[in-house]
Amino acid sequence: MQVRKFAVADATFERSPGQDADIFAANMIDQRHGGPITIGFGRYGPNQSLEETLAVHDVMVVIEGRLSVTSDAGTVTAGPGEIVSMPKGEKVTIRAHEQGAVTAYVTYPHWQEAAA
Amino acid sequence: MQVRKFAVADATFERSPGQDADIFAANMIDQRHGGPITIGFGRYGPNQSLEETLAVHDVMVVIEGRLSVTSDAGTVTAGPGEIVSMPKGEKVTIRAHEQGAVTAYVTYPHWQEAAA
Repeated sequence: MQVRKFAVADATFERSPGQDADIFAANMIDQRHGGPITIGFGRYGPNQSLEETLAVHDVMVVIEGRLSVTSDAGTVTAGPGEIVSMPKGEKVTIRAHEQGAVTAYVTYPHWQEAAA
Repeated sequence: MQVRKFAVADATFERSPGQDADIFAANMIDQRHGGPITIGFGRYGPNQSLEETLAVHDVMVVIEGRLSVTSDAGTVTAGPGEIVSMPKGEKVTIRAHEQGAVTAYVTYPHWQEAAA
């Protein structure tokens, strides 16, 4: 593997599996590349939400917009430059605010393999 | 572990080990919390640089400013909202541009343990 740089403009978004909201994911690095972590971008339409029990450790960095994440620990809200840490096993509801959101994510291990 | 949110304003920065440039790191989640990944913020002063052979897989998301990363693969430059993937084993030089930079980072496994 080599050092690589990714921009949202390089991403090919696909609808996140298991839900039909306007929420999309674009893996840039994943199990195909041989490393232990998945790296990608997420895109959330205005006021869209998904509920999920996390099969992997998932870290989001908000690039644009704003998201709220509700779990047993309550609700946290994050905007540009803020990080949300979502440990494996947590049940979360992720909800974009009215302007939608773009995120960068890192998961360990690979979320597509854990979901399979 | 619980879902948590982090902002740069919450971070306590310390000089990155093994170098004396104005480059600082602030772990928000690490080996003390029991999970497999370290999450934190990095801060680079204007035109500061460090050279390192990566002991862990390291992902940076640029929050502010601009960085260039030089490796065997050449040089990539990243600005706000862009991701740099730096695989374990790569030798990199990370250099902030004239405005400095703030990053979010995720490492697998924990960089402080790998460096110890």
